[in-house]
Parts: sequence; C-alpha cells; structure tokens
Amino acid sequence: MPRPRPILLAALLLCAAAPPVPTPNEIVVAAPASAWRAVPAEDLLVMVLGDGRQVLIQLAPAFAPVHVGNIRALARAGWWDGAAIVREQDDYVVQWARMPEGQALPAGVAAHPPAEYDRPAAGLPIVPLGFPDSYAPKAGWAGGWPVAGDGSRTWLTHCYGMVGVGRDMPPDTGSGEELYAVNGQAPRQLDRNIALVGRVVDGMAVLSALPRGTAALGFYADPAQRLPIRSVRVAADLPPTERPRLEVLDPASPAFAAALSARASRRDPFFVRPAGMTDLCNVPVPARIGHTAR
Amino acid sequence: MPRPRPILLAALLLCAAAPPVPTPNEIVVAAPASAWRAVPAEDLLVMVLGDGRQVLIQLAPAFAPVHVGNIRALARAGWWDGAAIVREQDDYVVQWARMPEGQALPAGVAAHPPAEYDRPAAGLPIVPLGFPDSYAPKAGWAGGWPVAGDGSRTWLTHCYGMVGVGRDMPPDTGSGEELYAVNGQAPRQLDRNIALVGRVVDGMAVLSALPRGTAALGFYADPAQRLPIRSVRVAADLPPTERPRLEVLDPASPAFAAALSARASRRDPFFVRPAGMTDLCNVPVPARIGHTAR
Repeated sequence: MPRPRPILLAALLLCAAAPPVPTPNEIVVAAPASAWRAVPAEDLLVMVLGDGRQVLIQLAPAFAPVHVGNIRALARAGWWDGAAIVREQDDYVVQWARMPEGQALPAGVAAHPPAEYDRPAAGLPIVPLGFPDSYAPKAGWAGGWPVAGDGSRTWLTHCYGMVGVGRDMPPDTGSGEELYAVNGQAPRQLDRNIALVGRVVDGMAVLSALPRGTAALGFYADPAQRLPIRSVRVAADLPPTERPRLEVLDPASPAFAAALSARASRRDPFFVRPAGMTDLCNVPVPARIGHTAR
Repeated sequence: MPRPRPILLAALLLCAAAPPVPTPNEIVVAAPASAWRAVPAEDLLVMVLGDGRQVLIQLAPAFAPVHVGNIRALARAGWWDGAAIVREQDDYVVQWARMPEGQALPAGVAAHPPAEYDRPAAGLPIVPLGFPDSYAPKAGWAGGWPVAGDGSRTWLTHCYGMVGVGRDMPPDTGSGEELYAVNGQAPRQLDRNIALVGRVVDGMAVLSALPRGTAALGFYADPAQRLPIRSVRVAADLPPTERPRLEVLDPASPAFAAALSARASRRDPFFVRPAGMTDLCNVPVPARIGHTAR
C-alpha cells in the first residue's frame, strides 16, 4: 500500500485535530428555540397507569379530526378511568380498553366515524425524507408527523409509538374507545387500513416493557395480568401546575435537516461505514417535555 | 349509487361463497415438510435465564465464522454462566455480558476477530424481496437469513431479533463476549458496522419485555436491576432429550413465496387497502421449534 503523500498526511492530521462530529442526538439537543413547536394542550393526553407511571400521547387532529374529537370526549367522560392495558403482542402493538367491551358510549362520541385513513395532500406540505420509502411514492413529515403519500392523498404511517384506533371488520372504523401503540418494527401494512390518531411521546419505555400476552393476538389470557389505567385526561383540563408542556422539533427546521443528514450518514467515531440512507420510521420526530411555570 | 347488475351480483355471491383468503401465518402453518430446513444443533444456542425462562438463538456461521466460533467456544467454557442482561434500551437493543468487563477470555477465543461485517456475494444466492430496500441495492434472503447487498458483497441486516457483537471503537470488532439483540425498529444504520452473528428464534417476547435501563444507552443504573443468566449452551452439547430441534422455512420455497406475497398484499377480511409492498424487516423468516425424540 502506498504511503500517504504529504498533502494527504496534512489532511489526515487536520481531521484528527478537528472537533468530533456530533451525533444526531447532539444536534437535536443543540437545536435553537426557534426550531421547536409547542403542542396545544388540547392535543395532548396524559395517561396515568395504576402504578402511577405516566404516558403522554400527542393527538393528530389534522389527520383524524372525528376520531380525535371522540378521544377527547371519551377522556372528558372518564371513559378510560379504570380501563386497562389488555394486549401486548410482541413486535406489534400494545392496546388498552375499558372492559368488558360493548359498553354504551358517552354523549358526544360518534359511534361510526368516517374512514379517516388518509386525507387530501393539498394544504399540507411534506418535508421529504429524501430517500426511497418501501411503501409509498412519497414519504416525509407533514404538520410534524411522519407521513407517506401518493401526491393526491397523505396518510400517517405506523412507526414505533404511533397510536391507532382498534376496530372490528370493515366498514367499521372504531370509535376510539380502544387504542393501541406500535411496539416494534413498523407494521406499515396497517397504513390506510386503520385510523392513526397520534403518538406516544413519552412512556413507550413503559408500555413496551410489559409482559407479552399469551392468548391469541397477544391479549392477556387472565384479566389479572392486565395493567390497570387510573385515568386519561386531556392536558388542557389539568391544573396549570400539572399540565405537561410538549414541544416537537419542526421537521422543516435546519436543525431537523441536520439531524436527519447525520442520522443517514453517521460520522461519529463508532461508525466505520455510514449507510448514506435511512428510512422514515428510523427517524423519530424529537420531542421535549417540561411543565408550565409552577 | 347504481344497484348491481345481475352478473355483478352473481360475482358478489360467488365471492361471498369462496373460502376466506388465508393470512400469511396460515400459509406458513400449512407449509409442507419439504419447505422446512433443519438447523444443525451446532448452530443453536440455548440460553437459560435466572428465572428459568429459555431463549433460543440461531447462529450464522456463513456470515461471521470467526465470531461464531468464538461464541461456541465461550459457551463451552461457561462464559455466560452467571452473566446477566445488562442493558435494555427502548426501541434499540437488549444486551448481555459477563460482569465486570475485561476478564481474561477462555482458551481458543480470538481476542481480535476480523471485521466480519459483510462477505462475498459469490456462492450465496439471494432470494429477492422483490420490493425496494431503503438501504441497499439488493435485499432478500440468503442461506435462510435476511440480507442486503450491492452485488459484490452481501451482509446480514439488523432486523428485529437479530443478534450482534458488542464492540468498542473501531478497528475493534468485539470478541463475541458481549451480545445484543434488536428490540425495535430495525437500526439498519448498524449494518456493515457491527458483526451480526445470528438471531433470537424464540424468547424475544422475554428479552424485549424487560424494564428499560435508566443509565446512558439503556444500561441498568443499578446492578441489582440486571436479570441473571443461568447458562448458555450449544444445543449439540445438551443431552438428546433436552436438545431443541429448530426448523426454519426456506425462503426459496413456494410456501415462503406465497406467504411473502400475502404479506405484501393482505387480502384477509380485516384489510381494506393492501399495501402491495413490504420491507425486508417486516417479513420475519418463520421458525418452528420442537424437541428431538424422547
């Protein structure tokens, strides 16, 4: 192997002296305040589990307005107070519901919402992923959400932590009374087949670590195995001191673009061969959570 | 809306009378014996956790022969007897190791294996996925494993449950003494940056349901939080009555092709809009496990 020529050697020395390349997470942490978007408290659910742990869910009214309206009404009627995690299917979904099924819905909840599986592309620009998607002609982020599209329609994608509406056979679309979150490899085959309504922005580490159910589809065989839910509230209804404040990194911001680029082509020292590519569900939209002034 | 004409009505009635379209799993269950390949007991690890639960790991010597040789030697020297699950990072990896780190390796274990991050494409035909991959020009299955490739090199991919070798900074490749398994969305950015050595074929439901570690990178902050490992054995070394018998569905078989097609275009009644596409890590290679004659 030829020895390096002086000019190359100088370049190598310069590289060695350069500051370390930031990781995607370091870029996110350093993002300026202008890159973050506050999420309205009306679009945030606070779920408190029986053991006191909290799960925060951001809602996506721009994609499933009737279902999201139902979910707010269900929370306000105390629908999930005393509900439970009833299903944990490995590498698929974790699901929660009020048992037994079939109870009368509270007033103001639409029993048969329309199929909010996708929406018009018009009026909702997509920040492109910039790499091919395995499932759709277009992929990227719209309104802060991971989406795919075909140019005329846009839809939310079943990435890790995304929350959807359990339903029976079509044309039923589910009322929103049973919800699930993705806990493994993105089951993108469900895109446009189920109403996605939001995502878990904090607490997937809790929901994904529960024991797997042993009955069909990962349901708990014994009701005693279910983890109870103490309450689910719309954040806007909580006293100001208890109200979480959620911000998400704007996918249209330079900081997001830099983190995306760094994620696709990792240059931090651990990596020997950057992929040069990434896929939509491997690029979570960063969120940060605080509390309003106490 | 126009009412159906008689010929359409007849077609609808025929459809209603047709047998239900099988799901991918139903196709796998119905696969003939000729579609299944027995895995040599030398390529199977049996890990018994401290609570008695078992995890089965299939090894991939065709891709990382030196690392797999190390892992067999480590198992035979009792390296992991008394080791523990030390890390559970949500939506990334679960990792196990003998603590403290830095103990002398047993005889016969190469301290510095070569970078078995990919291998020549020649001699290992790929059954193509048939859909674009987000990370590589080629994707599919080779030797029963999910792989990607560029035509001259082929490599294992970081799908859910795949097992890799923990390492420090390059050029270190890890000896195999610390292993991890993918527990979330496929971190394909690690492909060709780490030696993959196999996959968990049974027991991911156990490994992925452990509490998430709260220290950096999901390591357990308190050693008391670690789940002990009782033993790791090469299946070939177990008494015949305790030896699991593993078979995997041959990706080159018609049954696998049918299941892949059904998975990409779900026609079972739940689905209203088949994706028509799928991605590599959304198509696990089916495995079935029994025991040798007792």
